[in-house]
Amino acid sequence: MARVLYELAGSDPARRFSPYCWRSRMALAHKGLEAECEPWRFTEVERIAFSGQAKVPVLRDDERVVFDSWAIAEYLERAYPDRPSLFPGTPAASRFIAAWADAVLNAQLARLIVSDIPQWLEEGQQAYFRSSREARFGMRLEKVTEEREVRLPAFRAVLEPLRATLREQPFLGGETPAYGDYAVFGGFQWARVVSPLVLLEPDDPVTEWRERMLDLFNGLARATPSCGT
Amino acid sequence: MARVLYELAGSDPARRFSPYCWRSRMALAHKGLEAECEPWRFTEVERIAFSGQAKVPVLRDDERVVFDSWAIAEYLERAYPDRPSLFPGTPAASRFIAAWADAVLNAQLARLIVSDIPQWLEEGQQAYFRSSREARFGMRLEKVTEEREVRLPAFRAVLEPLRATLREQPFLGGETPAYGDYAVFGGFQWARVVSPLVLLEPDDPVTEWRERMLDLFNGLARATPSCGT
Repeated sequence: MARVLYELAGSDPARRFSPYCWRSRMALAHKGLEAECEPWRFTEVERIAFSGQAKVPVLRDDERVVFDSWAIAEYLERAYPDRPSLFPGTPAASRFIAAWADAVLNAQLARLIVSDIPQWLEEGQQAYFRSSREARFGMRLEKVTEEREVRLPAFRAVLEPLRATLREQPFLGGETPAYGDYAVFGGFQWARVVSPLVLLEPDDPVTEWRERMLDLFNGLARATPSCGT
Repeated sequence: MARVLYELAGSDPARRFSPYCWRSRMALAHKGLEAECEPWRFTEVERIAFSGQAKVPVLRDDERVVFDSWAIAEYLERAYPDRPSLFPGTPAASRFIAAWADAVLNAQLARLIVSDIPQWLEEGQQAYFRSSREARFGMRLEKVTEEREVRLPAFRAVLEPLRATLREQPFLGGETPAYGDYAVFGGFQWARVVSPLVLLEPDDPVTEWRERMLDLFNGLARATPSCGT
C-alpha cells in the first residue's frame, strides 16, 4: 500500500497512544482512506528522516510526505475533496478547537497520565522518557501518580466548554463528527490507551460523546489495545 | 425603525458593557442590519417582559422577538441568509468557541473587572450589583481590585488557545471575522468599556486581533464610550 501513517507505539506495536497520531488516524477513517499504520518509537529518528524532522505523525501518501497532525488534516482535505469533509465550512473554524486541545486538554491530561506511559515502552526508551518528562513537569513521575486524584476535579472543570457544547449537539462538528472532534478525542484516546485512570463521571455529556467517538468507523478506536473499559 | 436591540447600559446610556450584548451588536453589523440599540438597566424587568424572560440581549425584529445571544445569532443567520454568513459552514463549529468565551474568558474577566462596574451604574442599581456580585464571587469588590494584578498572568495564560489560533490566521473565522470572533470579542469589549485595567501585553497576537476587531464596521466598537486607549 502506498499510504503509510507513522504512529507512536509502545513496546507492544499494537499499543498506539499519541493523541496527535490518533487525530490523523481518525481523519483518515473519516475520509474513508486506507493506510498502513506503522509503529514508530521515540528514538527511531532515522526512520522518519525522509520527512525532514523527527516527530510523528508523519503521513506518506505515494510521493507526498506530510508531517504535523494539523498539516495532515489540511492535506487530506485538499487532496481528497470528494470525500466527506473534515472541515465543514473552512479549516479556520476548527483551529481554535485543536488549539484548545493542545494547550489545555492535552497539557492537563499529561499531568494525570504521564506516569502510566513508561510501562508501555521498550526498556531502552523508559529512561529517555522518564528523564525528559520529569524535566518538563518538574517532578518525579511517582509524584504525578500520587497527586492525580487531587487534580481530577480541576481537570473535569476545565472541560466545561466541551461539556456545554455537547449538551447542545452530539458532536463538536454538529450532527456529525468533524476534525475538531478528532482533535479533542485524540487526547481522551491517548489516556484510554495508557492509563486505567477514570477521567470522567459516567453521566458527564463528555462521557457520552466519547462513547459515540469510540463507536465511529465500526469501533476503530474502541478496538485498539487499551486500559479503558 | 422596526428592529430594536435591548442592551445593558450604565447610568450614562451610551456606556454599553455587556459582553453578550456586544456579541449581538457585532452580529447585526456583520449582517449589515441597522437596529436601534435601546439602553436597558438591570432592574428594568418589565421593559423586556414581552420577551418572556428578564435578561438582555433581546432582539425585536418587527413581530419577532428573540432573546439569548446565541439564539439571536442563529435567528439572524436563518432570517437573513443572503447577508454575509455569521457561521461559515455551520453554527455547530462556532459553538465551542462561544462556550469557551462563556465558561473561561468571561468568567476570568469578571474576576478582573467586576469591581470597576458599579461606578457606571445608577445609584439605585449599585447596591443590587454589589450584593449580587459579592455573593457570586465570595469576596468584597474591593478585594477583587486588590487581587487583580496577581491574577493577570493566569488570565493571560488562559488565552493560549486564542493566541495559538491567531498566530496562524487573522481571525478565528479565518481570513474574515465570524461569529466566534464576536463571541470572544464581546468579553474584551466589556472590559474595555468599564475598566482601565491593561489586560494584554502590546505584542500579544491577541492584542493585534483586538485592534482588528475594533476597526471593523468603521470602528463601531472603538467609537463607544470606554476606558480603553
